[in-house]
Amino acid sequence: MPASSDRPPSTATGQAPSNLDPGSRGRTGLWLVGARGAISTCVAYGIAGIRHDLIPSVGLPSAYPPLSGLDLVSLDDFVLGGHDVCTRDLSASAGELVAAGILPADLVSMVRDDAARFEAAIRPGILDVAETGFRDLDPRAAALGSLAPAEQSAAIEADLVAFREEHDLDRVVVVYLASTEAAVARQEAWNSGPEFEKAVAAGVPQPASLLYAYAAIRTGSPFVNFTPSIGANVPALMEMAATLGVPIAGNDGKTGETLVKTALAPMFRARALQVLAWQGYNMLGNRDGEVLRNPSHKAAKLESKDAALRSILGGATGATDGPHTQVSIDYVPSLGDWKTAWDFIHFEGFLGAKMSMQFTWSGCDSALAAPLVIDLARFADLAARSGESGALTHLGCYFKSPLQSREHDFHRQMEALYAYAQKHTAR
Amino acid sequence: MPASSDRPPSTATGQAPSNLDPGSRGRTGLWLVGARGAISTCVAYGIAGIRHDLIPSVGLPSAYPPLSGLDLVSLDDFVLGGHDVCTRDLSASAGELVAAGILPADLVSMVRDDAARFEAAIRPGILDVAETGFRDLDPRAAALGSLAPAEQSAAIEADLVAFREEHDLDRVVVVYLASTEAAVARQEAWNSGPEFEKAVAAGVPQPASLLYAYAAIRTGSPFVNFTPSIGANVPALMEMAATLGVPIAGNDGKTGETLVKTALAPMFRARALQVLAWQGYNMLGNRDGEVLRNPSHKAAKLESKDAALRSILGGATGATDGPHTQVSIDYVPSLGDWKTAWDFIHFEGFLGAKMSMQFTWSGCDSALAAPLVIDLARFADLAARSGESGALTHLGCYFKSPLQSREHDFHRQMEALYAYAQKHTAR
Amino acid sequence: MPASSDRPPSTATGQAPSNLDPGSRGRTGLWLVGARGAISTCVAYGIAGIRHDLIPSVGLPSAYPPLSGLDLVSLDDFVLGGHDVCTRDLSASAGELVAAGILPADLVSMVRDDAARFEAAIRPGILDVAETGFRDLDPRAAALGSLAPAEQSAAIEADLVAFREEHDLDRVVVVYLASTEAAVARQEAWNSGPEFEKAVAAGVPQPASLLYAYAAIRTGSPFVNFTPSIGANVPALMEMAATLGVPIAGNDGKTGETLVKTALAPMFRARALQVLAWQGYNMLGNRDGEVLRNPSHKAAKLESKDAALRSILGGATGATDGPHTQVSIDYVPSLGDWKTAWDFIHFEGFLGAKMSMQFTWSGCDSALAAPLVIDLARFADLAARSGESGALTHLGCYFKSPLQSREHDFHRQMEALYAYAQKHTAR
Amino acid sequence: MPASSDRPPSTATGQAPSNLDPGSRGRTGLWLVGARGAISTCVAYGIAGIRHDLIPSVGLPSAYPPLSGLDLVSLDDFVLGGHDVCTRDLSASAGELVAAGILPADLVSMVRDDAARFEAAIRPGILDVAETGFRDLDPRAAALGSLAPAEQSAAIEADLVAFREEHDLDRVVVVYLASTEAAVARQEAWNSGPEFEKAVAAGVPQPASLLYAYAAIRTGSPFVNFTPSIGANVPALMEMAATLGVPIAGNDGKTGETLVKTALAPMFRARALQVLAWQGYNMLGNRDGEVLRNPSHKAAKLESKDAALRSILGGATGATDGPHTQVSIDYVPSLGDWKTAWDFIHFEGFLGAKMSMQFTWSGCDSALAAPLVIDLARFADLAARSGESGALTHLGCYFKSPLQSREHDFHRQMEALYAYAQKHTAR
Repeated sequence: MPASSDRPPSTATGQAPSNLDPGSRGRTGLWLVGARGAISTCVAYGIAGIRHDLIPSVGLPSAYPPLSGLDLVSLDDFVLGGHDVCTRDLSASAGELVAAGILPADLVSMVRDDAARFEAAIRPGILDVAETGFRDLDPRAAALGSLAPAEQSAAIEADLVAFREEHDLDRVVVVYLASTEAAVARQEAWNSGPEFEKAVAAGVPQPASLLYAYAAIRTGSPFVNFTPSIGANVPALMEMAATLGVPIAGNDGKTGETLVKTALAPMFRARALQVLAWQGYNMLGNRDGEVLRNPSHKAAKLESKDAALRSILGGATGATDGPHTQVSIDYVPSLGDWKTAWDFIHFEGFLGAKMSMQFTWSGCDSALAAPLVIDLARFADLAARSGESGALTHLGCYFKSPLQSREHDFHRQMEALYAYAQKHTAR
Repeated sequence: MPASSDRPPSTATGQAPSNLDPGSRGRTGLWLVGARGAISTCVAYGIAGIRHDLIPSVGLPSAYPPLSGLDLVSLDDFVLGGHDVCTRDLSASAGELVAAGILPADLVSMVRDDAARFEAAIRPGILDVAETGFRDLDPRAAALGSLAPAEQSAAIEADLVAFREEHDLDRVVVVYLASTEAAVARQEAWNSGPEFEKAVAAGVPQPASLLYAYAAIRTGSPFVNFTPSIGANVPALMEMAATLGVPIAGNDGKTGETLVKTALAPMFRARALQVLAWQGYNMLGNRDGEVLRNPSHKAAKLESKDAALRSILGGATGATDGPHTQVSIDYVPSLGDWKTAWDFIHFEGFLGAKMSMQFTWSGCDSALAAPLVIDLARFADLAARSGESGALTHLGCYFKSPLQSREHDFHRQMEALYAYAQKHTAR
Repeated sequence: MPASSDRPPSTATGQAPSNLDPGSRGRTGLWLVGARGAISTCVAYGIAGIRHDLIPSVGLPSAYPPLSGLDLVSLDDFVLGGHDVCTRDLSASAGELVAAGILPADLVSMVRDDAARFEAAIRPGILDVAETGFRDLDPRAAALGSLAPAEQSAAIEADLVAFREEHDLDRVVVVYLASTEAAVARQEAWNSGPEFEKAVAAGVPQPASLLYAYAAIRTGSPFVNFTPSIGANVPALMEMAATLGVPIAGNDGKTGETLVKTALAPMFRARALQVLAWQGYNMLGNRDGEVLRNPSHKAAKLESKDAALRSILGGATGATDGPHTQVSIDYVPSLGDWKTAWDFIHFEGFLGAKMSMQFTWSGCDSALAAPLVIDLARFADLAARSGESGALTHLGCYFKSPLQSREHDFHRQMEALYAYAQKHTAR
Repeated sequence: MPASSDRPPSTATGQAPSNLDPGSRGRTGLWLVGARGAISTCVAYGIAGIRHDLIPSVGLPSAYPPLSGLDLVSLDDFVLGGHDVCTRDLSASAGELVAAGILPADLVSMVRDDAARFEAAIRPGILDVAETGFRDLDPRAAALGSLAPAEQSAAIEADLVAFREEHDLDRVVVVYLASTEAAVARQEAWNSGPEFEKAVAAGVPQPASLLYAYAAIRTGSPFVNFTPSIGANVPALMEMAATLGVPIAGNDGKTGETLVKTALAPMFRARALQVLAWQGYNMLGNRDGEVLRNPSHKAAKLESKDAALRSILGGATGATDGPHTQVSIDYVPSLGDWKTAWDFIHFEGFLGAKMSMQFTWSGCDSALAAPLVIDLARFADLAARSGESGALTHLGCYFKSPLQSREHDFHRQMEALYAYAQKHTAR
């Protein structure tokens, strides 16, 4: 298969850093939290496959114009590592994905060495406070789980620093990919950096995603949260990221049904069609789906999925209230990683005519998510080299709940990214 | 139902015309070719309903921000007239639309006077050369059909001038809404204005839509072609429109399945997903569908529907050839005006994963088309007042085959319209 | 519109009753509980429309061969009455159904007299114990609600007897059509007739549907429960019905999604295809949907919808457990009476190939239910004339939870009904 | 994977043949015409997989009650052979099916020996007269193509006899699985056996499927036509089959969309719902689809798909004409063997309410067809042992155009098969 990518040349520029002049591209660590999950596995095998010219870059937006014109880190220069709480090794995950028809069997056998190097760099992670009954739990992760938050954070930081030093990396980008954590009440201490640090020191339990974000920021590592978990989305961490000059991005990768929703809804608004109801019914059968059987995890996920639509359509045609929207999720084990969603849109047009549209999306979640993770890591790296810090609002197109942005219209989000790319390419 | 429109104030500005300063808004004639068809009927009852505050402006984009901020002609200032080749009167068309659940019965009875005024201004039109076996054909239209092209064109011009004078109108906008005409071979004479005029004078038969465009342009009337028929889309007429300062717009209103396609396809391109196949299957049961049973009419329609997709997706991910696309149309009488389309999109993502999306669109064609016709008439009127002439490329979002434009991405088309609106509002 | 029915001749046979020789067909009362609801309104206008030859019998199975060959009561010989707890009159219900595009406006105006006669025979009913916050509640119904169960039952009986006597009816068939009542714990006393009568006498509160069934049986009136509420489905009432020679039928009309499920599932079984998952997502916007927002009502409904599938597919291909099935229902007000359901079927075939089927059902619930109510009343009347009593198992095809039957395969249910018809026709 | 089949015991009965007493089950040849096509490949690997207990019998109806109670030939006793016109070997076909996710890779490697034995028994076949431009054509098949019909038939017969003798088989069942041949005009000579034999002797060209049927019948081999090609469906061959005591079955396997149609349509009839339109849109990407690009082949296929619906629904509710039905087929290469069909059903119910149902069927054609081929071979063998001859009408459930039967209702067809099974089991 001929690689259709349009990768930037690998000669580094060597110029002094400035806003539009990213510093020298060296080797960048890509640290995946949830390193043996389906998405991380696809990231690892995908990067290896492209490196060895075994697969094309289809599905990877940063490999095509206009984004490929940017001075992004080459896939050749990524070094992978990560945290996980399970003991099964990467090849077990890969085997599952081969059986599910997602990873090609020959790819897995041809990049065995790359996978082994990644596997060697996976360290035991910390469990989310609410996580229970996990299969094949790593006893070292369980041990970390009983430590105080400050000790947990310190352990993560130590792993990140050790990884950077061992591989002589210019920087490490942390991407959070662990399963959705339980919805938690906001803590007062999350509103300011010093208060938060006090709470951590005092042993107040914190969600795992928040501790990961904290550790990443403290070590100067750009942090990307691809899940609906809270991550860096609290004022305390936003503040620290700005102060320490660390770029952050999130939350919740926009991979499937929500992507389609935010690409379609603007059409109804543009045509002044009044959406009466937009109902979404999702089925998924992977670990993510299993975790969502827990109602408190489900609540976090659904909130994230529903907001975008209200934001795009709310009051579009003068109706005082927005459309009736509901999102349901059911766990259907036989589907595995092949998520299937059905959406029904009931709308009114001219003369009161009531019409409808319905769509079924059958997508492979991991294959959709993995290239976005790679893109985000490349963009976070570019931002760090360019001296950007805090929430990277030009990356809104990648997320269901973009940090510090109310724009959910996918096309406007893409225009914003293209405008950013043009500014950075025009130098 | 409260009218949710945001209509511009009806005080005219009275300033001298300039590019960004449209002249005084007076009374504008809206001349509908195919005046008793379903779309025209919805246009007439819709305008009357909004005027009398009986229906909201839902579905009419020009009634909402940002377009409502423009100095568009008020719906109160439209005077309706048109051509048709049938004898049945407007109330028969309205009755059919009530039975089909499209026009509300009470609206029809409450605006009877407005409908009667429109009916009084409908004149016999000319038949397309290929048209045969039409039911309830107006014998006067049949008589016109036997005249030479120059006489036909002169008859149309006379009707347009008489309408303008009788109602003391500032200008007449002609919107072509007749059934799709048969595909015809391009004539050499269409390439230049003088050659075309010679051919008409010499009696070379011309498609009806072309004669209508010719007559409109000669009388200085903006011409909008909402059908896939050829209309003004030949160099000869483009040239005349530019020379005589007449704005033109077309072809083929983007109301349903193609609208969705061009709103969705950019999402696949933006995510670097490779569309392998995009198949569309359309069912329609109205007169348009009946005409499409004639294979030569169908060919014209399908060509128009298929091009947009190739333009948006062609070569997006480096594939040498674009996606496999096909559009089928079947006539299903029981559906009447409720067009139903099913689209299937087969696509490849990262790691070669093959995924699919499918959607069903159930829309009422006339209720979708009518407000776009009103918008187009308002924009064509604004363009004429602003001294614009030739193809109005900022109106691409309204058409399947926008004149002199290769942009089919619906969102980019909307951005172009909004940019135009901003320029005109900012004065 | 030509009536396409095949109605039995109206000459009564006058022979002595025997199992296969129903007694003289006289006038039969059709007593609708929930008399002003959407289904009852469609029953009333539908019967009137067919009587006056204004509509065809489409949708009414008993009007076509082979069922039309039976000696069923003529629609001309039905006299309508019923109970309701609301004050709004029938014409208000009819108006809503006209607005929703279900009842034709001209039909409503042409059978005004028939509707008025039905309206005059509607009496205040009793509320279900759990019913609260009902709009336009009839104060007389509210007063009945505060009485002891024995008094409530006596009031219903008095209404039934008065109706029979006033109109000189041979018998009254009671059809229960009230909104789904809350799920209730089974009472020990429901297991035997005498115990149940003791409980009623002692003032133990009973679900409304059960009291209606009790009153019907005590007055010798055949009882049909078209809802998922409990009705006569307790041993105590089954026993009384057998003892008193009263035919009963139920529960829960099989009108839409479940009908399709039970018609399709046998195909998978016949082909030895292993259904892995069958997920159903339902949207409805009528009063029924509103009531279902109450979780305890929803539970009763879902249980009824899910059992059929397990019964048909359970263990079909040797799998130890049946397929993964789930049914979800959401309330979508804009849909009104137009119920829309999406079902997804994931199945495995030969060589382990995983395939899928999905369907969308868009049906008008009342228009689907009303003719089945008429059929059931005709069959219950025939059974009474034929001396049949207890659960009418040949009517299983009409119900989601057929009384005393485990057969859910729609085609086998139809074969059973046709066999019954053949036996009764062959005389 | 545990085999869930319920295979009959392998002890032969050894009794004298009689109608309900099939003769001794010995070894049966299964001769597949189109031996290297996708269906044959699935048949071969499927039989081998079940023999070696590597796959369950899911999808194979004859492996489950009540059919498993019959004295059918054991899969262990089948010996495979066949004809093909291509040179590529079976493992190439198997490789394609593995890549398409249909055949499990490990199954293919584990039954390599069985596949090699089958491969060794494949002989060059004859081309259909209209076949042109075939890839990887076997030169021996091309040579056979230039012979006279009588010589072609003799060559086939010789292959069948040699296969039977070489493997010491009790009988050979021929299953015709070659690609759909071009529609041809009926020949007068097809109406009688002697006339047909004269025409063959005189060198009148004949469709390949007809010559295969002729050869099979002449050698006393039961003949099953799983394709829409003509096969034995002419009076001349019917007559010979009856005279020579040869069972025949066909035409056109009912595997996917038509299966669903004939399972669903009876539901509409049973509920007296008037189907206004039933539109089917099919996409397929395998060799079958490629052949269908040829319009004359497509015509044969579509006729076969459309008749069933008319037969089940025609005049059901007194409408003088049946529903409006259309079937479209498009070739979509990216889908490969995964056929996807969308059906739209527009129907009218009580009170004139217009409703709709739509379904999407995504099935793997070969995996659906292969087990039916095995079933048919077992039933044809049982029929031969039981002394049955001519069209086996109890096998109608397997075909789109069952020979000598007008019953298309899938459920009634199943009842007929179950009745046959009961009669044969009851001995």
